[in-house]
Amino acid sequence: MPRFDERLADAVRRKGNPVCLGIDPRWDSLPKAIRDRHDPDALDGVAHAFEVFGLRVLELIGERVPVVKPQAAFFEACGPEGFHAMRALLRRCREMNILTILDAKRGDIASTAAAYADAAFRVWGADSVTVNPYLGEDAVEPFIAAARECDGGLFVLVRTSNPGGGLFQNLDCGGIPLYRRVAGAVAGWNAGGNVGAVVGATHPRELVELRAAMPDVWFLIPGYGAQGGTAADLKLGFRAVGLWAVVNSSRALPCPFAPDDADWEAKVVRAADAMIAALKE
Amino acid sequence: MPRFDERLADAVRRKGNPVCLGIDPRWDSLPKAIRDRHDPDALDGVAHAFEVFGLRVLELIGERVPVVKPQAAFFEACGPEGFHAMRALLRRCREMNILTILDAKRGDIASTAAAYADAAFRVWGADSVTVNPYLGEDAVEPFIAAARECDGGLFVLVRTSNPGGGLFQNLDCGGIPLYRRVAGAVAGWNAGGNVGAVVGATHPRELVELRAAMPDVWFLIPGYGAQGGTAADLKLGFRAVGLWAVVNSSRALPCPFAPDDADWEAKVVRAADAMIAALKE
Repeated sequence: MPRFDERLADAVRRKGNPVCLGIDPRWDSLPKAIRDRHDPDALDGVAHAFEVFGLRVLELIGERVPVVKPQAAFFEACGPEGFHAMRALLRRCREMNILTILDAKRGDIASTAAAYADAAFRVWGADSVTVNPYLGEDAVEPFIAAARECDGGLFVLVRTSNPGGGLFQNLDCGGIPLYRRVAGAVAGWNAGGNVGAVVGATHPRELVELRAAMPDVWFLIPGYGAQGGTAADLKLGFRAVGLWAVVNSSRALPCPFAPDDADWEAKVVRAADAMIAALKE
Repeated sequence: MPRFDERLADAVRRKGNPVCLGIDPRWDSLPKAIRDRHDPDALDGVAHAFEVFGLRVLELIGERVPVVKPQAAFFEACGPEGFHAMRALLRRCREMNILTILDAKRGDIASTAAAYADAAFRVWGADSVTVNPYLGEDAVEPFIAAARECDGGLFVLVRTSNPGGGLFQNLDCGGIPLYRRVAGAVAGWNAGGNVGAVVGATHPRELVELRAAMPDVWFLIPGYGAQGGTAADLKLGFRAVGLWAVVNSSRALPCPFAPDDADWEAKVVRAADAMIAALKE
């Protein structure tokens, strides 16, 4: 199998767009048609509704997107049954030949990081996983080693899209902010082509700066749509048109409907049309 | 119910020691007597062995320790069944009136952090959870809010015990290292008495410095025993004898035996005797 950066480039070229479909299911955002068939007071009912919704969204637009990113937190909040649902969605993506990013933001000392990597790649069957850099290189290394074995990858948090993300990330560390120090490390860790960077779309100037600091690193850019990033902002993160960055939408793309919209499925398809078109311009 | 810092102080006073029993189960470290009854090639077999081992350790020494800390990664690596086992251990601790720290090192943007907090406190039933600060205050706040509702707590990573923990944590941020910036934030976040700090025992000088920077904050001190921290080092983290810090051991305490030791249970009891005595001196 080709290495992870080549697998990403191939997927983006094949689909002709860099869209990452975020699956962050929340009960209150699900279509009423699905909620009505599940019990909100039972964790397994909610988990099953998440799975039904996710599988249906994959049927509707999965063939058109290169990457899918489930958010582990929402599945974990459904208990063990939530992880069954998460694994089912990741498996369906693999059957559909869609690359996956398990958004779990894990990070721990080496022996523990190895267990998280094992969970992400082998137990859940994701192609890649998001990783927090606060514990340093020896805590990231087990993810790189595990990724190498399965031609998978990881995306290290560099600059996050949340409003308060700068509290520590922007601290001046000898003339450059902390996030630039992390970016420098990520550029080095990516020697084998399997380490990407999470760079929020809500900070366009930083996208330019970080693209320069990590010229050969794939970016995962969250924050498109609901969090305020625009298509014009995002393009600053690409290295060539539509390449070396995937752009995630977890709200505007899979949940562009009001819960009681009868035509929610058509709206999901139109949202995919719109996002793909905006990123192609 | 009293607030979290008071619950911790009460637990430590009641048991007369500040020992935190870490439960980081690994198949290869389990007693042969337990391994022989489970299938290592089935995730649910491994998960069940972890649960049997953890419950037996709780029977052996649970009455003597104030705090238990399961490491989520090792349970996650067993798939959904691993989370059943983790929840069973947390429930047993609650029945035994032992406080729990779910070591998950979670951290994400606010709406996602709220889902992780919901999972930790409500779904798994932990009293507290470890949290990574890299995303800043708005990412920590949902954990504080959720902790407040259940008189639970969180422990924010400040200075970790791994050899490479200093790569970013030690960076000079305007005259003081990053970990001191995080410590300053943690001291502020602890206004309600429910935010602690993870401070590695492998850096004794920093324990003194961080105790001064966070006088009213409970420390969770990992790295005792296997990672190199000694009892004398640790005492630098306490505010008064045995108070305002809990000291974790995940290897020397629950796994002081060779897997085929027939008397592994007696060795666990003796390891508890030794650790409690060392921290009382």
